[in-house]
Amino acid sequence: YEDDPNKRTTIATEVNVLKNFRPQLPDHYRDADILFLANIDPELQEDILAQMSNPRLVAMDTMNYWIQTRAASLLNVLNKVDVFFANDEEVRMLTDELNLITAGKRLLEKGPSLVVIKKGEHGALLLSKDFVFVAPAYPSEAVLDPTGAGDSFGGGFLGYLDNVESYAEGDIRKAAVYGSVLASFTIEKFGIDRLESLSSEEIENRFAEFQKLVSF
Amino acid sequence: YEDDPNKRTTIATEVNVLKNFRPQLPDHYRDADILFLANIDPELQEDILAQMSNPRLVAMDTMNYWIQTRAASLLNVLNKVDVFFANDEEVRMLTDELNLITAGKRLLEKGPSLVVIKKGEHGALLLSKDFVFVAPAYPSEAVLDPTGAGDSFGGGFLGYLDNVESYAEGDIRKAAVYGSVLASFTIEKFGIDRLESLSSEEIENRFAEFQKLVSF
Repeated sequence: YEDDPNKRTTIATEVNVLKNFRPQLPDHYRDADILFLANIDPELQEDILAQMSNPRLVAMDTMNYWIQTRAASLLNVLNKVDVFFANDEEVRMLTDELNLITAGKRLLEKGPSLVVIKKGEHGALLLSKDFVFVAPAYPSEAVLDPTGAGDSFGGGFLGYLDNVESYAEGDIRKAAVYGSVLASFTIEKFGIDRLESLSSEEIENRFAEFQKLVSF
Repeated sequence: YEDDPNKRTTIATEVNVLKNFRPQLPDHYRDADILFLANIDPELQEDILAQMSNPRLVAMDTMNYWIQTRAASLLNVLNKVDVFFANDEEVRMLTDELNLITAGKRLLEKGPSLVVIKKGEHGALLLSKDFVFVAPAYPSEAVLDPTGAGDSFGGGFLGYLDNVESYAEGDIRKAAVYGSVLASFTIEKFGIDRLESLSSEEIENRFAEFQKLVSF
């Protein structure tokens, strides 16, 4: 863009907008039961959390960039949430531990009561002080684009909990499977194309397939 | 060893011994119900298979080296076995397919009725024409040395089937979990140290832990 002063101005404006990005929650969002702090700057995550009146469950996600550049802020938010979603690479980076169980236990000491380690095609590992749960990924040939699998997992997980209005261990386990179910559909098409055409019946059928997948 | 003609002779002798290595099964081995062709040259695997009278179940393992250097011989043995054990990397190399389900289906077309894809810390994926089963790995902090995990899995798997004398789907699933159980103990110490001190009760307790690990 060196030769185009107009484009340079546009980019400078965009950076400025991002710098000044301070999301304000609409009033009717503030009394939600469940808050999902998806992957953004941990300082913004904390800002948003402070705008909530009294959520029953707070979950957060993050990424390698914030772990490398905002570790202190990230740990600050982590201390205030109930559920921490991260992939295996992020968990290892954040704790400097190779063993995922050891890493997960370290993270439980930082505040959350549940750590959900997302392992892509290998499923997810859930750790709390009381239990460990392994949720498989759906073994599918119909994988078109894995983008959004982690976010769909988080959405399916929290959507199920919101639906049953329970955070009991049995529901946490089921929530993880619904997360895997939603992720397995998302990756079958680009973007949210597959989710747009998805029926409740398809979700329940795949949930039943997960049951068969792991039963012995 | 260039400066030591004695050592050179020793190595030449060893290579010669390996070249002439043609295992002969003792007579009382030949009527075994189950044959496990562990990872050696596929031509030797076929030799050994030919020495058996009438095994009810034949399993084989292999490695990247034979896939690269003896693909034709390997496929020849594969066509004669019931169970094929391989890790995810080997399965992809042998089929030139990235997707493990697609790769597993390709291998089912090559002869075996069951393909067991070992994924190390991510567990194992079993495929037959009738079912898919995901056996988790035991999430353990006590991992000292993963050497031998795959062979322990194979041993536990086939040992269970030998014990129950059944190859029904339900027993195949349980066998995979017993394989994971045995592998999870093996990696807690070096060599076979952990297996030497292992009790049936410990095995059954861990099997029960696997049940809790995946139940939802």
